[in-house]
Amino acid sequence: MDYLEQLQKRYSVKKFDGEKKVQQEILERIMEAGKLSASSLGLQPYEIIVVASDEMREKLIPAFYNPSQITTCSHLMVITAKNGIGDEYINNYFSHISDTRQIPLDNLELFRKSIDSHMNRLSPESLMSWAEKQGYIVLGNLMFAAALENVDTCPMEGFRQEVIDEILNLDPKKEKTCVTLALGYRSAEDHFQNLKKVRKPNDKLFKFM
Amino acid sequence: MDYLEQLQKRYSVKKFDGEKKVQQEILERIMEAGKLSASSLGLQPYEIIVVASDEMREKLIPAFYNPSQITTCSHLMVITAKNGIGDEYINNYFSHISDTRQIPLDNLELFRKSIDSHMNRLSPESLMSWAEKQGYIVLGNLMFAAALENVDTCPMEGFRQEVIDEILNLDPKKEKTCVTLALGYRSAEDHFQNLKKVRKPNDKLFKFM
Repeated sequence: MDYLEQLQKRYSVKKFDGEKKVQQEILERIMEAGKLSASSLGLQPYEIIVVASDEMREKLIPAFYNPSQITTCSHLMVITAKNGIGDEYINNYFSHISDTRQIPLDNLELFRKSIDSHMNRLSPESLMSWAEKQGYIVLGNLMFAAALENVDTCPMEGFRQEVIDEILNLDPKKEKTCVTLALGYRSAEDHFQNLKKVRKPNDKLFKFM
Repeated sequence: MDYLEQLQKRYSVKKFDGEKKVQQEILERIMEAGKLSASSLGLQPYEIIVVASDEMREKLIPAFYNPSQITTCSHLMVITAKNGIGDEYINNYFSHISDTRQIPLDNLELFRKSIDSHMNRLSPESLMSWAEKQGYIVLGNLMFAAALENVDTCPMEGFRQEVIDEILNLDPKKEKTCVTLALGYRSAEDHFQNLKKVRKPNDKLFKFM
């Protein structure tokens, strides 16, 4: 498999073929790629909500400025970002490391202290921005994996965040919608698939030093 | 190639084998994956600085809180985020679309207006946050492609941004360092490679709706 060829074929789909659903097995592999994303300090300050039911997808339509992808996609993923990382969250994280790696909690004390001091240094706004950025690594991984699976995607930022949060019943004290990704198969009617990909030329994008 | 297996093998390397360099051809494929990253409105509000010279890499060491990766990596990539997207940038973008797709500029007027109005709605802080998030999609793509190429990576946020900006001679009015990525090959001495990967269990990371 030539991954660059797959990335070259990828584009942000404007209209999906509403009849074609992504199979559960393929969806789960893409989700696994999202799960394996790197995150700062390993904290994974996000969740991934997979909207699979037509009912929920339809409820979400009014929250998007451009509903064309939502009305036609097979699945919608909503990446939410944690609004603050409290002691309980960090405690759970360390118990989980300790269990997974069979390391006593005491041996993780130094790492724990470095995380605590890092988290305490950040303002609530910086913390949210940090969490959102980690969510975008997940977004990147999901799109990349989907491209390798020949599943089409469209990442979307054009939504009313509070509206999605309310429909998905998110607790605003704990989390908020960070970014969304529609998945499915491109419609033959989506003429954007025939357009040449536009990317900055190398000399504008890269600098060697 | 099983991409999930490759992602499973990936971890954030603490110490690289300083003797092993990433070949130029492989590096260029990874860069190409970065170039093919999706970005909001296609604007690619970032640049990728590839630090290949030992001299420049050494200059950057003091800017990092943990120098272990910088002192041993083969290449360092610095993703910078644009500090504002001015008319000139957008003009260039539209000329480039027009050239690449052979579409007269007039036909792109609607798209242009939607970008202008979107950019005008954002505060300088929101614009920077938006640009940085796009940079994190690039980070995700670079790490994913590197994993497929059996190249090891470590994404790093622990740096003094102003110090890097100054060493790289960035114009603070135009851009700033967003995030960095060390590339190379793991050292046999890096015992982190033997630890089990820790990820939230599925029921904490995913929700189906």
